[in-house]
Amino acid sequence: MAVTDIERGAMRRALAVALNGPRGVNPQVGAVILSPGGEILADGWHRGIGTAHAEVDALSKLAADAARGATAVVTLEPCNHTGHTGPCSEALIAAGIARVVYAVADPGEHSAGGAQRLRDAGIDVDARVLEEDAAQLLDSWLTVQRLGRPHVTVKWAQSLDGRAAAADGTSKWITGPAARADVHRRRSQTDAIVAGTGTVLADDPALTARDESGELFGHQPLPVVIGSRAVPDAAALRRHPHSFEQYANPAEALDALARRGVHRVFVEGGPTLASAFLREGLADEVLAYVAPVLLGGDRLAVDDIGVATISQARRLAVASIENLGDDLLVIAHPTGESEN
Amino acid sequence: MAVTDIERGAMRRALAVALNGPRGVNPQVGAVILSPGGEILADGWHRGIGTAHAEVDALSKLAADAARGATAVVTLEPCNHTGHTGPCSEALIAAGIARVVYAVADPGEHSAGGAQRLRDAGIDVDARVLEEDAAQLLDSWLTVQRLGRPHVTVKWAQSLDGRAAAADGTSKWITGPAARADVHRRRSQTDAIVAGTGTVLADDPALTARDESGELFGHQPLPVVIGSRAVPDAAALRRHPHSFEQYANPAEALDALARRGVHRVFVEGGPTLASAFLREGLADEVLAYVAPVLLGGDRLAVDDIGVATISQARRLAVASIENLGDDLLVIAHPTGESEN
Ligand SMILES: NC(=O)c1ccc[n+]([C@@H]2O[C@H](COP(=O)([O-])OP(=O)(O)OC[C@H]3O[C@@H](n4cnc5c(N)ncnc54)[C@H](OP(=O)(O)O)[C@@H]3O)[C@@H](O)[C@H]2O)c1
Ligand SMILES: NC(=O)c1ccc[n+]([C@@H]2O[C@H](COP(=O)([O-])OP(=O)(O)OC[C@H]3O[C@@H](n4cnc5c(N)ncnc54)[C@H](OP(=O)(O)O)[C@@H]3O)[C@@H](O)[C@H]2O)c1
Repeated sequence: MAVTDIERGAMRRALAVALNGPRGVNPQVGAVILSPGGEILADGWHRGIGTAHAEVDALSKLAADAARGATAVVTLEPCNHTGHTGPCSEALIAAGIARVVYAVADPGEHSAGGAQRLRDAGIDVDARVLEEDAAQLLDSWLTVQRLGRPHVTVKWAQSLDGRAAAADGTSKWITGPAARADVHRRRSQTDAIVAGTGTVLADDPALTARDESGELFGHQPLPVVIGSRAVPDAAALRRHPHSFEQYANPAEALDALARRGVHRVFVEGGPTLASAFLREGLADEVLAYVAPVLLGGDRLAVDDIGVATISQARRLAVASIENLGDDLLVIAHPTGESEN
Repeated sequence: MAVTDIERGAMRRALAVALNGPRGVNPQVGAVILSPGGEILADGWHRGIGTAHAEVDALSKLAADAARGATAVVTLEPCNHTGHTGPCSEALIAAGIARVVYAVADPGEHSAGGAQRLRDAGIDVDARVLEEDAAQLLDSWLTVQRLGRPHVTVKWAQSLDGRAAAADGTSKWITGPAARADVHRRRSQTDAIVAGTGTVLADDPALTARDESGELFGHQPLPVVIGSRAVPDAAALRRHPHSFEQYANPAEALDALARRGVHRVFVEGGPTLASAFLREGLADEVLAYVAPVLLGGDRLAVDDIGVATISQARRLAVASIENLGDDLLVIAHPTGESEN
């Protein structure tokens, strides 16, 4: 049957209640149970690893037979997988749900197939309702499911002409206070901050996320160093609230971080490491903070990224361009397509 | 006396009629004569070199005594200089004008002083009415008057990471059709297009301004080459409707072009020449067409511009950022200030 406006409204509510769940290793998922007449009977969300999934959370708020003939509206395809909790598809069948409407298909290797299981049980299923919005909510989680590695943001600050520093290496500050505050805010929303040994040795960064008064944010992402050179005993990094991890190269780091439950990685440079992530196709998102200055010289924000000729140019899908004080923030996604 | 709304309205009209005059060596200036009661008696504009100035053009449309006691509203300070025409200040005094309102002061060495001459003759004078708008109309002419050289726009196309070409030198096309059409339109509004010998030898550019179908625009700026290497006999440049001029370096070129009556120069590259203009403080405006691609490598859109350390960064005042297809056009003015 066709998706109704009431169901679309319920999906909007499911997306809103999904945000009640914690951001982190598990996806933020919401569910709403609608009576056959279109009234909201219950809603629920996923409260984090080891707890009930959103649809089971919603069902748990209802009396035993209250969901018979009802419609379940869920932001993610009900799972078909017995993990910490039983499969949601079974719970929906057992509750007598007559119809399921969901937004995003489950990309998981073990958990997908829920929609098919529901259909096999005679339940009416509609998919892809407000899919874009739900996918946005789940972006890093979807990356992990699809690619088996964390979602990677590569950030750099540059002059309009693409330099990360002046000829003598000085770079404090290319960008202004609004851009720097934005970086700290975004750091605080990730699971790990990554820097290369080059940056650690040159700049001795703290790799903390701080508010405008310099105070640490409540959530501090895991500090990560990539490269083989040793981090000095006196490094600021060693005073970070979490002890740092060190890996030899980007692929090894992402592999280990994924296994550790890290979903969002923020790569802070320097240029050599940022270029390695770009070259190896390991950047899902690019944040370029562009200051309205010209620097010239050879301290480039992006080095060799493996483009030999113009047809291999790495095309970016620009998601937004924001003004931050005098600076611009370009948020873009490498498309994987070359120019022509 | 205070400037009235009627006078401000007349200034708007003067700015509009100024556009009737040709763009080129002489400034575009407009004038409106207001009766003591605030009616428009006449308007006039400057029709190009050797012809009457705007205020004299307006007066010429009136009977001998019709301007007695009237107000002259002019976009540029009336001149005090006997050139091709007599000084406008004298003409206004002779016509019995009681009050003069103007927008921009005359920066000319020989022609300034008109306002003082009017005041000395007992005429009431108010200045700086809609000054910004008038200055914008006169920008290249004001540059010539103030700096004794043409107004210079330095244009380049770059990837987000500041490259002008891929590692193998290929660059067709970094930017898309909308950006290229914009370049041609802007070329057609200048007096001269400048390229370095490096570009002439590498790309064999036509240096013409063409519309989207490839047809030449009616106005073709003068083609100019900078550098000592010879332009090949077979160069496309030799088929340009105007024969090209060649100069050894930027300063010499601007000097010769100013004497030849050129007001607007469009520097099209390459990177070596663009950087020379920037380094020598000879760029009044920068047009950076930024394509949403990453290239890496060593073909930089901007080379050494004489910045050794971050405090010397060349700060730009960004005038606008436009979307042109997938590309961005950043229009900015070097401020002459360094970062800190
Ligand atoms: N503008 C900005 O946004 C920004 C941000 C951060 C830093 N910076 C500046 O950047 C400079 C430091 O950057 P940098 O480029 O020299 O060093 P870097 O990018 O911080 O670190 C480079 C190191 O990463 C390690 N690495 C691991 N896997 C790699 C791979 N696949 N490819 C390449 N490298 C790999 C290597 O370490 P080992 O050699 O130890 O194995 C390599 O030397 C400093 O001057 C800093 O101020 C600028
Ligand atoms: N992305 C873009 O917007 C764009 C635009 C144009 C060209 N390009 C690319 O740029 C490349 C050519 O650029 P290029 O940098 O090699 O050459 P260029 O900038 O076109 O010309 C450099 C030449 O300018 C002359 N010159 C005169 N005065 C100078 C001064 N004060 N400082 C420096 N040079 C001065 C010198 O000529 P002599 O040695 O003869 O004395 C010098 O070799 C081509 O590959 C072309 O495709 C890109």
